Amino acid sequence: MFKAKIFVNYKPSVLDPKAEVIQNTLARLGDDNVQHVLVGKYFELLLSGDEAAVRAQIDRICDTMLANINTESYRFTLEPVSDAAVAE
Amino acid sequence: MFKAKIFVNYKPSVLDPKAEVIQNTLARLGDDNVQHVLVGKYFELLLSGDEAAVRAQIDRICDTMLANINTESYRFTLEPVSDAAVAE
Repeated sequence: MFKAKIFVNYKPSVLDPKAEVIQNTLARLGDDNVQHVLVGKYFELLLSGDEAAVRAQIDRICDTMLANINTESYRFTLEPVSDAAVAE
Repeated sequence: MFKAKIFVNYKPSVLDPKAEVIQNTLARLGDDNVQHVLVGKYFELLLSGDEAAVRAQIDRICDTMLANINTESYRFTLEPVSDAAVAE
C-alpha cells in the first residue's frame, strides 16, 4: 500500500488571482512582510499495487483528472504504508 | 526570509464531498485500488522576519484567513531561504 502526496500548482507563467487577492489583503491588514503567495491543491491517495504501476497510475490520474495540464503542473511523492497503519 | 508550506485540510469528522466524488469516479473508471482520497489546500508564503514572530504570524493568518477553523485544521513547516534564492 502506498500513500501518494500530490501537489498541483499553477505553472509560473499563469496568473493566479486567488494568490494575488490573498497577498493584497494581507498587505492591507498590515502583513506587508509577506513577499509571495502561492495557492495550490493538495491530494492524498491511498493505493494498493506495486510501486512502478502505482507511479504510472498516478501520472495518468493527474493528467486526466486532478490537474489541468494546460495551466497546472503537478508533482508527487510516494511512501509505503503498512496495511495496519491504514486500518487505524 | 522564510518559506512557509501550509496544509489546510478538512477535519476527519467533516464530510468531504469533493474527495468522495473523486474516489467514486476513479472506481468507476477502473482505478478501484484507490482506497482513500483526501483533498486539501496548499499555500506557500514567503515572509521576512525572525522565526518566532513569523510562526505566530502564520498561526494568525491561518486562523483568520486561510483556514475555516470550524471545519478545517492546518499545519505548516517553515524553512529558511536565502534572499538570493528568492530573487531568482
